[in-house]
Amino acid sequence: MWPQGVRSAGISCGIKRSGKLDLGVLVADEAVSWAGTFTQNAAAAACVQWSRERLGAPVRALVVNSGNANACTGSAGARAVQQTVTAAAQALECPAEEILVSSTGPIGIPLNHDAITSALPETIGALDGDTGGFARAILTTDSYPKVSSSRAGEATVVGVAKGAAMLAPNMATMLAFIATDAVLDGEALQRCLSEAVDYSFNRLCIDACESTNDAVFLLATSRVPGASEAQVDDALQHVCGDLALKMARDAEGASKLVRVVVEGAHDEASAVRLAKAVAASALWRAAASGGDPNWGRVLAALGTAQRSLDLQKVSVAIGGEVLFDAGEPAGSLAAAAAAMHEDEFTVSCSLGGGDGRAEVLTSDLTERYVALNAGGLT
Amino acid sequence: MWPQGVRSAGISCGIKRSGKLDLGVLVADEAVSWAGTFTQNAAAAACVQWSRERLGAPVRALVVNSGNANACTGSAGARAVQQTVTAAAQALECPAEEILVSSTGPIGIPLNHDAITSALPETIGALDGDTGGFARAILTTDSYPKVSSSRAGEATVVGVAKGAAMLAPNMATMLAFIATDAVLDGEALQRCLSEAVDYSFNRLCIDACESTNDAVFLLATSRVPGASEAQVDDALQHVCGDLALKMARDAEGASKLVRVVVEGAHDEASAVRLAKAVAASALWRAAASGGDPNWGRVLAALGTAQRSLDLQKVSVAIGGEVLFDAGEPAGSLAAAAAAMHEDEFTVSCSLGGGDGRAEVLTSDLTERYVALNAGGLT
Repeated sequence: MWPQGVRSAGISCGIKRSGKLDLGVLVADEAVSWAGTFTQNAAAAACVQWSRERLGAPVRALVVNSGNANACTGSAGARAVQQTVTAAAQALECPAEEILVSSTGPIGIPLNHDAITSALPETIGALDGDTGGFARAILTTDSYPKVSSSRAGEATVVGVAKGAAMLAPNMATMLAFIATDAVLDGEALQRCLSEAVDYSFNRLCIDACESTNDAVFLLATSRVPGASEAQVDDALQHVCGDLALKMARDAEGASKLVRVVVEGAHDEASAVRLAKAVAASALWRAAASGGDPNWGRVLAALGTAQRSLDLQKVSVAIGGEVLFDAGEPAGSLAAAAAAMHEDEFTVSCSLGGGDGRAEVLTSDLTERYVALNAGGLT
Repeated sequence: MWPQGVRSAGISCGIKRSGKLDLGVLVADEAVSWAGTFTQNAAAAACVQWSRERLGAPVRALVVNSGNANACTGSAGARAVQQTVTAAAQALECPAEEILVSSTGPIGIPLNHDAITSALPETIGALDGDTGGFARAILTTDSYPKVSSSRAGEATVVGVAKGAAMLAPNMATMLAFIATDAVLDGEALQRCLSEAVDYSFNRLCIDACESTNDAVFLLATSRVPGASEAQVDDALQHVCGDLALKMARDAEGASKLVRVVVEGAHDEASAVRLAKAVAASALWRAAASGGDPNWGRVLAALGTAQRSLDLQKVSVAIGGEVLFDAGEPAGSLAAAAAAMHEDEFTVSCSLGGGDGRAEVLTSDLTERYVALNAGGLT
């Protein structure tokens, strides 16, 4: 259930040929504070451009479609956003500037905004406190809806996300929609959200392809007083972390979750960068898919990302089995291979160069990932 | 045939279980000038560490094995190099410091140096001017040997390479061995080689995984006077460019060659960086494998690599068909798809932001690449 003061609905409006749910609406009972984080891609979608311009002013609702990213769609894409927010504003009797929009799906295809505007009144008529329909309406190739919640004092934080998965002709796109009934001003909201995103979604690296549509929205209805900023912060970190984990587990083609831990880096930012370098290695991720404990590919990725790495201080462990230590091969490949055949395993890299530590989530690279992304536009 | 003053041989010494050729020796009739470029990976292999320390002094021979990278092998790896150069020096009656070494294959596995040292006398006894055996002895999962030659006045430049391909448990490794009988001093050699490498191998990006063993060697026997530095430069660029092209065509799992051209970048370095960002996109390369003209993934990769990109000035063409122009989708997807089903096609990105232009070679990402790299160590 959404926190107090927020309702949602999800229906099929005809964008997806499959007939699956493809339109979601999230509505606050009145205009509320919000915070957001968006892709930094220069090819950001029309919906991202509209929504991030709304930062700083209260909003009433968010309209999200799946099945089309409305990215790189030029002036037609901007018009589709305009039509959508105008129709939503009419139905909700509010200014168009109080409507946020978000889209996910293939890039570069004109968005059928008539399908959205025609369906909006019915969708808005179906609003309730359940997250289910909305959570399904935002999915693309995700296997299941992703919902997470946490308490902040008497208040709650509830988030819904779609994963780092793709349609055949689509970018790795992550969207998350979070609401809380806690009382927090806009600045505190943005501070909490940015920090939670930094420690969760921004430490998820599936295929190193940044989307044109990534967006995280947090709406605060201020219905339930009493929760401190620290409590909201904790709850938000829990929700974002849990959603990121669900995304990694359900990444496109993924057969397992891989946690990449780097410690002993110069600082935390360096640890994140190095862990992402390992997470982005196609070779290491292919080895992960076969349960092959190819620690050399982990070292090669680290050695590419940090030229000053001193192998004499480095150790690499897979599933707890140390396979390289102080410049020398070590341990049992068989033990590491056994750990890699679980649904989830950790590769730990200790660099001996400082206090920086970070964990980045990724998945394995499978033949299915390639097959799923080899066609679709034509 | 090698240039005057250089001979080679290749045999099977038992490193590869398949019994295929795995040991090559390249010998100059006397100690000669040479130039080299090596991986910058902090986890550089023991052979790389030895060979790059030899830069600046004349060399007599180069011993290369395939089937084992001798990388991340610690003190045992360093001893294997020492044993190898000592045995080669004895057989050739020269100082050990005049022997270069190079290895390619799986990382982190002890190198059977006894196999090499036992086989060296026989290999050295079989030296001749033919490149064939040597060219086959350095291959891993390459489909065919890669040899290229060019004239520099009366002199010749001959190069042999192995491609950006992998054994199942192996890194994308490229090695090239080039010889010329032209007369050029060491500094000029290094200048020519570094420039040629920069415009050829350094513009090859198959899976964005930098090897621990990448190395290019150029030996100059000074047997044929008369060629100017410019002539040698031209010949070297031709040879390196041709070998890079052969590597891209024969990249692991590749079904087609993809040329990524970026023009209108701020400068040439920026054009190279942006073209590599497109070449490194797993999503775009998966689309390439299916012949799917997913230009949105090209734009998304550019937009990630350059935050200041102005889409209004950008155009993207696939196989000559413009699919995005001045901020708007354009052209015929079917025409672009037809071009993508050829053995080779070009994706051209015009950014409208300067005079920088570069071409980077890549291949498509196939299910076969994943399958080939999913196992092998255990």
